[in-house]
Amino acid sequence: MSVLKLLLEYDGSEFSGWAAQPGLRTVEGELQRALETALRAPVELSVAGRTDTGVHAWGQVASFQTDAEVDPDQLAHSLNGILHTDVAVRGANWAGDNFNARHDALSRTYCYRVLARRVPSPFERRRALWWQRPLDGEALEACAGALRGTHDFTAFTPTQTEHVRFERDVMRAEWRRQADVLEFWIEADTFMRHMVRVLVGTMLDVAAGRRSMDDFARLLDGAPRSEAGETAEPHGLYLASVRY
Amino acid sequence: MSVLKLLLEYDGSEFSGWAAQPGLRTVEGELQRALETALRAPVELSVAGRTDTGVHAWGQVASFQTDAEVDPDQLAHSLNGILHTDVAVRGANWAGDNFNARHDALSRTYCYRVLARRVPSPFERRRALWWQRPLDGEALEACAGALRGTHDFTAFTPTQTEHVRFERDVMRAEWRRQADVLEFWIEADTFMRHMVRVLVGTMLDVAAGRRSMDDFARLLDGAPRSEAGETAEPHGLYLASVRY
Repeated sequence: MSVLKLLLEYDGSEFSGWAAQPGLRTVEGELQRALETALRAPVELSVAGRTDTGVHAWGQVASFQTDAEVDPDQLAHSLNGILHTDVAVRGANWAGDNFNARHDALSRTYCYRVLARRVPSPFERRRALWWQRPLDGEALEACAGALRGTHDFTAFTPTQTEHVRFERDVMRAEWRRQADVLEFWIEADTFMRHMVRVLVGTMLDVAAGRRSMDDFARLLDGAPRSEAGETAEPHGLYLASVRY
Repeated sequence: MSVLKLLLEYDGSEFSGWAAQPGLRTVEGELQRALETALRAPVELSVAGRTDTGVHAWGQVASFQTDAEVDPDQLAHSLNGILHTDVAVRGANWAGDNFNARHDALSRTYCYRVLARRVPSPFERRRALWWQRPLDGEALEACAGALRGTHDFTAFTPTQTEHVRFERDVMRAEWRRQADVLEFWIEADTFMRHMVRVLVGTMLDVAAGRRSMDDFARLLDGAPRSEAGETAEPHGLYLASVRY
């Protein structure tokens, strides 16, 4: 058995997230079906980041074991012919025999996009959170600064979560402005469920003057979920890349 | 009666074009209904560029006469609350009493976007024409150069068209590359039906080596429609701006 690694891009708008679920249209479900059509054999996928309903990906990575003798470029081309146009295989290649997209990832990078202007944008409606009120850019940058390093993110994931360890190592955290769009970029070893979205919801509280910077910093020490802000909507979030 | 001028942006994917038609969802129809809700009076719209089904706008301009005493900013805000999210009013202001968005426009600028790469993009699927084969960028630029000035565009509009004059003045025509996307920008006094799309379809023939540059230049002298290329798909086209 050899392992094939796929680089994927998808618009999450019409998917019920990554993970296959009976009766729902999911990225894993669609990809699995396309692979089984192309390879005529069942496959079991491993994935770097299980995205939620509505969340997008520019650079998701999945892998699977196969004994099929295929040309990876040809397979990617075939898959793009089978898949609907809201998911694309950007590339495929053979990986080491023990490669696993989930376990071997050193870090994941996410981007959350906020359209910060009074007028809505038809072209960003499913691609960015629309934010009409004023935002303090320096407060956002200060929050990002506080995030870097190792912290306990208990406050930023649902309480019914099954994690054992709530510390995460944040290698990169910054806000960047691209015209009317504010982008939050974060890289960490792994992420917990909703973590980026609750971080964004809470940082927007600080930037809107509804919460102090000190309060935000305090949350990074293992405060309970109830003390952090709301979970920002999924359609602003993108799994940008995975590092191995 | 005073005249209000609206600057509009829309994603044309789910509209049957601009012009109101019974039983179809059109930009004019939706906007008219929203205006009548906000102003409680019928309005008749004039528009700078009647876009076809699937064509987008970044900077469409419409105008109408009204005796309502409204604050234009407030009206724009109300309209954005009433309209679906695929159309937005970017701004509203009072214009001269005789202003007419269609008749007073000095020029319109359109942009046609081509995603030129082997792999499709989920995020560009309704925003750019996907072109997988090689394209000769210099040939595209040479075509654009030939377009500047006054020409007879008979070859670039359906034969059953009702125009009297087929000459148009092209003030700007150029191809620009933005990463994987090639953008064709054209400004002219007025455009005929399908004109930009047939121009793009024909230029792509030249860039793919299926038609000579000389042949393209010859078409600008009033050749019949049958001699030009195909009408490129509508979803790559944007009405970018209107000059008054």
